[in-house]
This record gives sequence, C-alpha cells and structure tokens, in this order.
Amino acid sequence: MVNEHTTRTEVAVVGGGPAGLMLSHLLHLAGIDSVVVDHRRVAEIESTHRAGILERDSVRLLVDSGVSDRVLREGHEHEGIDLRFGGRSHRVDFSTLVGASCWLYPQTEVFVDLHAARVRDGGDLRYGVSDTAVGGTDGPDPEPTVTFVDAEGRRQRVVADLVVGADGSRSICRALVAGRRQHFREYPFAWFGVLVEAPPSAPELIYARSERGFALISQRTDVVQRMYFQCDPTEDAAAWSDDRIWAELDARLAGDDGFTLQQGRVIERTVLPFRSFVQAPMTHGRLALAGDAAHTVPPTGAKGLNLALSDVRLLAEAVERLLRKDDDGALGAYSDQALRRVWRAQHFSYWMTTMLHRVDGASEFDELRQLGELQGIVASPHGAAYLAEGYTGWPNG
Amino acid sequence: MVNEHTTRTEVAVVGGGPAGLMLSHLLHLAGIDSVVVDHRRVAEIESTHRAGILERDSVRLLVDSGVSDRVLREGHEHEGIDLRFGGRSHRVDFSTLVGASCWLYPQTEVFVDLHAARVRDGGDLRYGVSDTAVGGTDGPDPEPTVTFVDAEGRRQRVVADLVVGADGSRSICRALVAGRRQHFREYPFAWFGVLVEAPPSAPELIYARSERGFALISQRTDVVQRMYFQCDPTEDAAAWSDDRIWAELDARLAGDDGFTLQQGRVIERTVLPFRSFVQAPMTHGRLALAGDAAHTVPPTGAKGLNLALSDVRLLAEAVERLLRKDDDGALGAYSDQALRRVWRAQHFSYWMTTMLHRVDGASEFDELRQLGELQGIVASPHGAAYLAEGYTGWPNG
Repeated sequence: MVNEHTTRTEVAVVGGGPAGLMLSHLLHLAGIDSVVVDHRRVAEIESTHRAGILERDSVRLLVDSGVSDRVLREGHEHEGIDLRFGGRSHRVDFSTLVGASCWLYPQTEVFVDLHAARVRDGGDLRYGVSDTAVGGTDGPDPEPTVTFVDAEGRRQRVVADLVVGADGSRSICRALVAGRRQHFREYPFAWFGVLVEAPPSAPELIYARSERGFALISQRTDVVQRMYFQCDPTEDAAAWSDDRIWAELDARLAGDDGFTLQQGRVIERTVLPFRSFVQAPMTHGRLALAGDAAHTVPPTGAKGLNLALSDVRLLAEAVERLLRKDDDGALGAYSDQALRRVWRAQHFSYWMTTMLHRVDGASEFDELRQLGELQGIVASPHGAAYLAEGYTGWPNG
Repeated sequence: MVNEHTTRTEVAVVGGGPAGLMLSHLLHLAGIDSVVVDHRRVAEIESTHRAGILERDSVRLLVDSGVSDRVLREGHEHEGIDLRFGGRSHRVDFSTLVGASCWLYPQTEVFVDLHAARVRDGGDLRYGVSDTAVGGTDGPDPEPTVTFVDAEGRRQRVVADLVVGADGSRSICRALVAGRRQHFREYPFAWFGVLVEAPPSAPELIYARSERGFALISQRTDVVQRMYFQCDPTEDAAAWSDDRIWAELDARLAGDDGFTLQQGRVIERTVLPFRSFVQAPMTHGRLALAGDAAHTVPPTGAKGLNLALSDVRLLAEAVERLLRKDDDGALGAYSDQALRRVWRAQHFSYWMTTMLHRVDGASEFDELRQLGELQGIVASPHGAAYLAEGYTGWPNG
C-alpha cells in the first residue's frame, strides 16, 4: 500500500476516552506497549459534559496508579445522597452505612488527567484519525491490525498482539466478536439535563421521586450546577424556556421541609437517552472489549464510567497474563469476571431507576408500592446499606 | 323481629380465623368484651391447608400473650433460607445477618391454638353462622350491629361499640368503608401447590429460580411435605400426574451440587391464585378492617398471616384507646400505621416474586439482570440482610 506507515506495538487500543487511556496507562505500568487511536480530537472530548460520580475504587485507581491526585484536591467527596420523597429528604449516609464515599469529579476531568499522564509518560496517542478499521483479530493465525488515516492525512497501520475496543457506545470493534449475543432494554423515558449558572442548592446529590416524575440535583462548581429531570424520550429541549425548566424542577422538589432550589440562567439543555445494552462475550480471539463498547447502563446511579474503569483494571491483568505468561484462558476469564459485575450494575441501575421514576400508566398500586419500597429503604439500615454499597461500588472480584 | 336474640358487647368481630381470634384474645387481655362470628365451621377451618412461616414477632405474640407455646415445641425454627439458582443453593443465614429467625408452623395450627385459647378463656365464638350482615357503623349516631343466623338456625343480633372486619379476602365488611380506594395488581402466574408423602428434602425452605420458572420446597412434618411451582393461572391441577409433577419439580431444582428431591405420593394438588390487593383506609366510622379483608399479598415471602397478626396487634391498642380513653383519632392512626407496613410488605412480596419468577416473554436482558440481582444479593451481606430482615419481619412501628 502506498505511503502507509506501519507501527508495531503490543496492544492497539481503539478509543481514547477514559477507558482506553486508563488501559494504556496500566499496561505502561506493566511494561506493555500500546498505541491509542481515536477519531475525536482532544479538544472535542474535553468539551463534552458527562456524568461525574466516581466510586471509591475509581478514585483509588486514579490516585494509586499515579495518574493524578487532582480528584482529591479539586473533586468533592460525597459521603451520602438524599432520597427525596413524600415532601422531604431522607439521608442515605454512605460513611455510616458502609464506611465508603464517592467523589464528584466530572468525567471530562478524568479524561484530562489521564491524557496528561499518558503524554507525561510518552504514550503513543493518535487523536483525530479517520477511516479506522480493525482486522486480523481471529482465525488460526491472527495478526491483529488497526488501520486509519491520521490527523495529518497519512495512512497508518498498527500491528499488535491484541486489539482492545474501548470505542464507546458506537463501537466498531464489537461487531468483530463472532457468536456475540446482544441484550437490550428500553426504558419509556429520558433525562432532560441542564447546566445552570447558580450556586449549589445542596452539598450532595438529591435523588427525588415525585408525582411528576424523577429529578436529580447535582453539582459542578461553586457557580455552575447540573440538574436532570425525567422526560419523554421525544421531548424537544429547545422548546423549554428557563422559566418552564425551573417551574418543573421546583414542582418535583417541592416539600414541607424548607428546601429551596437555587435558580439561575440555563446555559445548556439536552435530552439524554435511556438505554441498557450488554454484548457477550467481551472477547473473541485477539480482541477484547471494555466499557461502553460492551455495555451501557442508564444514568441513574452513575455506573457507566465506573464500570469502564473496572473493566480495564481487570483487562490490564488479563493482558499481562496473555502476553507475559502465555495464558490462553486469560481473556475468557476477563469476560466472565467483567460480565458478572456488568449484570450486577445493570440490576443496580435498573433498581435505582424503577425505584425513583414515574412510568406513564402505572397503577396507583405500583406508585404506592414504590413509596413503600423507598420508605422501607430509608427505615432499614440494611436496605440503605445495600443501596450505599452499590452506589459507592462493590469490592472487586 | 320475631325470635331474634340480641347480645350486647364492646367489639363485634366478623371473621373467626387467626386475625379475628387473635384480636378477640388481645381485647380480652385488655378487659374488652367481644363476640366473634364466622360462617365457616371450626372443622372446616382446621382442615384448610395454608402457608406456615411465622415471623419472629408473630411467634412472640402467640407465646407472650399466652395463647400457646406449642409453636416453640412443635414448630420448627428456621434460621435461614436457600436461594437456589445457577445450579446450586446459596444460603441466606438469618441468624448471622440480622440475629432473627422465623418458624415453620402451619396456619391451621395457629388457628387451633387461638381457638383453644379463646374457648379456655370463655370467649363468645359463633361459628357456622349464615346470612351475616353488618350495619350502623357510620353516620352521626352509630349503632354498630352484626346480624346473622346461628348454627342452630336462630336469628341473632350483636350490638357493639365497634365492628371489626377480619373476614378475609371475600370480606363483606370492606364495602362499608365509604370513600374507599382499592388497589390491585395482577401477576401473570400462579402457584401449583402439592402436599406429598415423602421425607423432607431439606431442613429449611428452598426458593429456586430456574429457566422453567420458580419452585419452592417447604416442609410440613417428617412424612408430609409442601412444595410449589410457578404455573399458568389457568393450569388444571387434575391434569398433572404424580410423575409429571415430580419431573417438573426435579427440572426446576436441577443442579450440580448433588441436591436430590425426596419423592413420594402426591396427596393434594391445588392451583393458588396470585394477587395483590389493598383497600384504604382500613377504617370508617365505627368499623375497622384487619388482615386479608383489607389486603392480600402474593404468597412469595409468606407475609399474609404475619401482616394480619401485625394488624390486630396495632388494632387492639387502637380499640383500647377508643373505648377506654375516648381517643377519637385512634382508628385513623391505626389505619395509617398499618398501611405503612402493608405497603412495605407489598413491596417485599413483589420483590421476592419478581426476583425469582419467570415472566413469559421476558427478554434475555431481564433474565440476566435477574440473575445479576440474585448474585448481588448472595454476594453482599447488606443485600442478604435486607432480605433477611424483611423475611423475618420488620420491627413494629
């Protein structure tokens, strides 16, 4: 092929978001070379707002693996959440219940830290590429290869021992898994997300269940906040004025405990889709998937990024066993182990979702049962601890 | 009216099952007179097989209130259950998790004990009556009255300060609650229940989730066992041979841990309907409802009898406040307090049901999520404790 440049590496990582970069970082620590390829430009990823709750072990991974301790300095430790229903807030205190906490630290910042770490450590990162294609990952004599056109327009070929698809919910890698099973679940609602110029309304997150549907009060900085409310998937975000948005949020947070929502200009409004997806297995031949490429969860409970980081922590070990110890079963073990956590997280996200959202056409029986569940959770240290454990993250295993 | 005999009492109890008898017993201890009326004959109630798991506080109520300690001598203390899925059983150890246990003691025996206690204490019990009617429970000048024809064919009138409807799922009393709201939930399955001549297959209950649907292995005596399996609500019990029943149960309990079902002759087979029902409020004027008259739960989790006993424990206190302390708010407080527990129990029963049953047409996603939940429950002491607490019974309040 004319003008094609070939790079030889050990692991070709498709996708340079948090999952791909963290994997590349962990492999680097194990002395394994990788090349990371992404069609997006760095500035584009840095300007995309995403969820921002990190489980305890996600924070530990960032800090202990030497990526950065900025999360500890600039993030906010959250020791609980409020479940709000029946006109007042009910505290679920993670510290007391399970001795753990989570951290408010936007995914964008996780990316910035990981990108800086890979640059610092001399990582081979190719952003802004196009025409990415993956081949040679299976068959009797695999030669895992990623081809693409780089940001400067040059044709590139990366030949590796393994390709990792960390290329998100629109993954091109997942189709290469022969015999794959894809599992979907649709939810009859979406989230209307807003970024607002206002002081924080609360120190930590408020998950509110109301007759009008779910709402989530989150934070970003001292002057910008993130809020969400359940909406129809076909809702037109542009049709909502600031006043209408605040009226809706106020109605869903209404109560008799004096809680007041701090209002301000709405600077971004988006409708976020709700979907659940799992592809199994997560490996095939010399290909492995990680993060959104293999699974997406609804946003309730903020498991997406955390699951991706959990995947790559397991995957880095499996890759080391494969490449350094010639362990053929390593990738299969990775898929099984990762999927156990994925299904647990799918259930957790489903549970948080169904416990707090309003389903059109739900019977009064189901609404009162839902309140019965919420009351039971906050009345029972065991129920609250079960929630707290899932929210702050299950132990690895 | 010709030949009508009138009895004056403080509380007329419609329904002489465990709820009505326990209320009458507790009122007796508080020095309050009652008359209990039931259209069934004692022998009929004594020969009806019903569920047999008593929560810790139900056992305490029987023993501490002086009904009988036979449950402690002839019942079986169960310190846990097995959740069976993925080919093996997973122990949920109530004692370790929440320091509580429950007791296997058939509802029929609870009835026998309560009936004996009321006879012992000179209770006024009228079984085998007909044409029961209730009136005078509301309006500005109430005169609560129950009329009926007694077992000897005499017309009877009981005039009281209060009528309690403890008359079960076909309650005639519940229609007297003006402004009532009735909440229903249908489930797309039923239980096929069998009584079999066989030794016990396990020392405690096994709740099994399988590809073929739910099954429950329970016990009755050393030589007779109770088992259930999920079936279609329209299933014809008579169409099932012993062999077919055992093949189905074997398939649902199959695993790789050596568990074997002890087989024997099937001596009773019934299809049990699955329904959830709540009527609110549970009081109106000088009428109060208790137990199945106000609510039914699906059998999963065995909450029915326990909820009824919880109701009457609260109701006995409310009646005492009403009749001895002239506390007009007592019955309203009873309804609100009882309904909080009812909705918590409705959720618990729904949760145990949906966690273990197979829904026709469920997606593979939902089945794998269900397994993810079960795995999460047995892997997490918090999740298991949340289940154990609900199963052995929440503290009163």
